[in-house]
Amino acid sequence: MRKVAVAGVGLVKVSEHWEKPIWGLFADAALQAVKDAGSDDVDSLYVGNMSGSLMQDQLNMGALMADALARPGLHAVRVEAGSASGGVAFHEAVKAVASGYSDCALVAGVEKMSDVLPEVAAKSLVMEEEQEYSAYTGVTRAGLSAMLHRLYMDLYSEPAEVGMMAVQSHENAVGCRHAQYPFRMSIERAMDSPMEADPIHMMECAGVGDGAAAVVLVPADAAGVEVAATAVATDYCSLAMREDPLTLGAVMKAAEKAYRMADVKPGDIDLAEVHDDYTINGVLSLESLGLVEAGKAAKLVAEGGAARDGSIPTNTFGGLKARGNPLGATGVYQVAEVALQLRGSAGDHQVEGAEVGLAQNMGGMGSTCAVTILRRLAP
Amino acid sequence: MRKVAVAGVGLVKVSEHWEKPIWGLFADAALQAVKDAGSDDVDSLYVGNMSGSLMQDQLNMGALMADALARPGLHAVRVEAGSASGGVAFHEAVKAVASGYSDCALVAGVEKMSDVLPEVAAKSLVMEEEQEYSAYTGVTRAGLSAMLHRLYMDLYSEPAEVGMMAVQSHENAVGCRHAQYPFRMSIERAMDSPMEADPIHMMECAGVGDGAAAVVLVPADAAGVEVAATAVATDYCSLAMREDPLTLGAVMKAAEKAYRMADVKPGDIDLAEVHDDYTINGVLSLESLGLVEAGKAAKLVAEGGAARDGSIPTNTFGGLKARGNPLGATGVYQVAEVALQLRGSAGDHQVEGAEVGLAQNMGGMGSTCAVTILRRLAP
Repeated sequence: MRKVAVAGVGLVKVSEHWEKPIWGLFADAALQAVKDAGSDDVDSLYVGNMSGSLMQDQLNMGALMADALARPGLHAVRVEAGSASGGVAFHEAVKAVASGYSDCALVAGVEKMSDVLPEVAAKSLVMEEEQEYSAYTGVTRAGLSAMLHRLYMDLYSEPAEVGMMAVQSHENAVGCRHAQYPFRMSIERAMDSPMEADPIHMMECAGVGDGAAAVVLVPADAAGVEVAATAVATDYCSLAMREDPLTLGAVMKAAEKAYRMADVKPGDIDLAEVHDDYTINGVLSLESLGLVEAGKAAKLVAEGGAARDGSIPTNTFGGLKARGNPLGATGVYQVAEVALQLRGSAGDHQVEGAEVGLAQNMGGMGSTCAVTILRRLAP
Repeated sequence: MRKVAVAGVGLVKVSEHWEKPIWGLFADAALQAVKDAGSDDVDSLYVGNMSGSLMQDQLNMGALMADALARPGLHAVRVEAGSASGGVAFHEAVKAVASGYSDCALVAGVEKMSDVLPEVAAKSLVMEEEQEYSAYTGVTRAGLSAMLHRLYMDLYSEPAEVGMMAVQSHENAVGCRHAQYPFRMSIERAMDSPMEADPIHMMECAGVGDGAAAVVLVPADAAGVEVAATAVATDYCSLAMREDPLTLGAVMKAAEKAYRMADVKPGDIDLAEVHDDYTINGVLSLESLGLVEAGKAAKLVAEGGAARDGSIPTNTFGGLKARGNPLGATGVYQVAEVALQLRGSAGDHQVEGAEVGLAQNMGGMGSTCAVTILRRLAP
């Protein structure tokens, strides 16, 4: 198996891009990444997109995006795994280069959500859940997350502690040029915001945004940022089927596989980008990744442990809450951000001395998870 | 790069399966394939599905299908490339095994179309085309195919010659247990059927059906059916952008790549499963694959060249027209059928002495194409 490296990254600011079609957003990120990689020898394209079929009535997005690059002929495919589409697309592209089928793979996550009504965006999230057993009840993703949030508080935590996950993400996003909400937010503002689904406040939820992120993958050289491991795992779709709903089985399994493959321990991780679409999911992710003991992540975050100088720097550019969560693009943003950190190009967001970073991207209520570990190779 | 083999296949009859949910169809094919392979060591799952997001409101189908196998934890992902979803899912799964990431990959194509109104099925096909430049005009896939059909007739052929593609597919399907329409059809019946989009008659179009097909992939051994090559390519989505609309650029490029990789020539192909969603597309596919000279495929088919004892046995179980075309499942049916032929397990459909077979699966108006070449290894 060939080793694989991240050779270039491209990031579009998560925002309302009314003037751009979805392929325009894609092209912006893709061309940035190709330029950053210093090569346009791309021979395969992996597109992470979740809701284009609902929001743009668009299928077959691989071919459409090859078109946008004026590269008809290119190997192109769309990978969909709900909100984990970006992370899983990255994973599959790594296999393409690892196998020798591709010598230069472009992975792009793209989503355009501003065009649709809020109820359509809400519907898209429920489409990640089982239609026959969960969605038909009328429950929303916020509602499902609220059940976990309530259970977590009953067992371990105060509301404001879980909410600090959002406060910390906003703090980390300040000054980030590709972040949707690069401003500070107090815990009071979060706790005073309206209830989205009790006990989840509006300001604990990631928003709706348009975005695209891209990375270029090549066979690994002696230097650069290596893909030390990437793994995908699933869990029962229905929360009711899980032995312990506060344990994200897919996250745990993907992480175990990735740690083994990269030959690292959770303690070796210098920074993590985790899937905080709701504050509780960010908290549970830190725990299921093995980065924090079960029941202690909210407290750790509240005490500053997730800050850039904390014990486990987390969501260093703002995470889903403040950088933004354009669904199928999110997983690629995460990987690109980790790559920037390991290259030492994270500017004001730099985690000093970062050598090993992790990105964790979830689909559904954790029914799919992609975990990627990147490592800085000696220069 | 490890060599990869097809170790097992599973096929559900294409039909109206009102009593089964989409995951039930999937499970039927998947369990057959696993049993056929004689191993349940599956460690990754690739789901080819095109229109579940429209027809079942279901995303994140990788996790859902892992659930259906009672295998939470499994690596699972949905691959979508329009009607080429099945063929492209197969291609990506081959990379998983070739790279060493997977030692036993299950690829399943599944689609459930009977649940929806005919206009929704028609909409799903147009969702493979560019929404901003093609679909917005109101043109249907039949309408787009009709333009190619008209041009082909103007240059090369009589209506009844192109229509013979459907007649031959029906002839080949007789007795096939997994075929939707396993009966003979005369050219008169085809030519007397109502116009779908002039000059395409209703009986020249593949129908609507529910189906699932699965194959199990493992590292290749000394014997069995080897994946000699698999390639994916794209073309301009819009017909108007193509230099010659009768040349399917994606088919040609994927085929050239596959022939090179397998080290075979078109003349070495003993049988082909081609994408005859409309008769004209089957005809053009034979030509763009290089199996028949440009402008001569309709004549060749009309003269019996596509029969099991013809010069290029084509759609040996009935193709999209008669075996059925459950969209995202179709490409996996094709590969499974080629594997059955090379194993010598094709029963009444057997092409004698078949050693090398090809499957060609298209998305959109040929904007995406997957070509796979399988080869029988010495026993």
